[in-house]
Amino acid sequence: MVGEKKAVVLVSGGIDSTVLLHLLHRQGWRLFALAVHYGQRHSRELACARFQAETVGADSFRLLDMGFMGGLLKEGSALLAGGAPIPDLAEIPEDMRDQPPTYVPNRNMTLLSIAAAYAESIGGDRVFYGAQAQDEYGYWDCTPLFLERVNALLDLNRRRPVVVEAPLMHNSKADNVRLGIELGVDFARTWSCYRGGDHPCGCCPTCVERLNAFGAVGMADPLSCRDRAGSDDGRDQP
Amino acid sequence: MVGEKKAVVLVSGGIDSTVLLHLLHRQGWRLFALAVHYGQRHSRELACARFQAETVGADSFRLLDMGFMGGLLKEGSALLAGGAPIPDLAEIPEDMRDQPPTYVPNRNMTLLSIAAAYAESIGGDRVFYGAQAQDEYGYWDCTPLFLERVNALLDLNRRRPVVVEAPLMHNSKADNVRLGIELGVDFARTWSCYRGGDHPCGCCPTCVERLNAFGAVGMADPLSCRDRAGSDDGRDQP
Repeated sequence: MVGEKKAVVLVSGGIDSTVLLHLLHRQGWRLFALAVHYGQRHSRELACARFQAETVGADSFRLLDMGFMGGLLKEGSALLAGGAPIPDLAEIPEDMRDQPPTYVPNRNMTLLSIAAAYAESIGGDRVFYGAQAQDEYGYWDCTPLFLERVNALLDLNRRRPVVVEAPLMHNSKADNVRLGIELGVDFARTWSCYRGGDHPCGCCPTCVERLNAFGAVGMADPLSCRDRAGSDDGRDQP
Repeated sequence: MVGEKKAVVLVSGGIDSTVLLHLLHRQGWRLFALAVHYGQRHSRELACARFQAETVGADSFRLLDMGFMGGLLKEGSALLAGGAPIPDLAEIPEDMRDQPPTYVPNRNMTLLSIAAAYAESIGGDRVFYGAQAQDEYGYWDCTPLFLERVNALLDLNRRRPVVVEAPLMHNSKADNVRLGIELGVDFARTWSCYRGGDHPCGCCPTCVERLNAFGAVGMADPLSCRDRAGSDDGRDQP
């Protein structure tokens, strides 16, 4: 047990950060959940993030409005409103998969910087985020080396060097689903699809990864796509 | 000359970043100026930042609203609206000067992360910020080692590793005033005072540093305090 120690946790409402949140709750951390609207096409996932933070009795849940990142970075990412359309996983060429169109420029360094600032200001010394092993192939900012260098940087703080941890970094998403089941996570209240229609599209990179993870565990995704008809095409949402 | 290369520059409207902006303009960079409202007590300096960016004919000037940082971090800084009062320099104990009350938790890593994201998304590969030598004593995030570790982190980007530079890092503020004079900077359109009254207070840490710098150069600060009466006390501004 870590007693009364304060942890800032970045939450997105997806599987990985939700399982992380429940794991940290079980470990006894005082939880300060931070979700960020950074110009994503939809905010369905953020409502899930709030639900999950309330479920574990977090000390606080804060949703930061960084919607300006959409306008600032839209040339650099399909994940942002105004950017290129979200591709199906099958449409992403092999040689782009190490930094695919769904990559948001320098997002994780930005979010971790703010999370570390928050931890520092409330007298905490830990930040957690939900990077997992499969992210590593597509996102330089989900790798062990990234984490090592973030911490080398934060370690220069003269009063309160905050440490960033990613305890699920070596887990596959299937491992996280298994862990979430053990922790009693309600996966019906998580959201992964980048497109944000009424139902998950089932074809975007994160939908495919999610469906594969539930498949590997032998469990049906409670959100799984019964019918793609009626879901939208991932164009900008109002 | 660097021809058509794009540079993102963090500008605050103070002396250092203004001189930097003019220096980069002389060097021929295409300039994308980025100013951030991060919950400071006043935005007088940001109006100066915009003026200076227009003066050098920057390709763009963007002011990002991160006012939420005020509420998020106010327990950690006197610089933020809602935080502790701004101290006079003379009131800051010796043993706090390596990270004084005017330090904003992890601000520079946060701003540089966003600037690097912006550079990446517009196809640039340079970010500049105006750290100078005297900042080093009070702010871990203005040191050569900080810069080195920021760049070690950004270097992991698989497509466009942005490089952060701080060409004035070894200059004193007096050196920057001298350089600014040579570059034709209008210092009447810069702002430093943390308190944000009608005139600079003349006593807060940045006012003292500014007055000393002009004194060392033997030039009167065009903003210099004629009369403290009538300036406010640095409490929150509407």
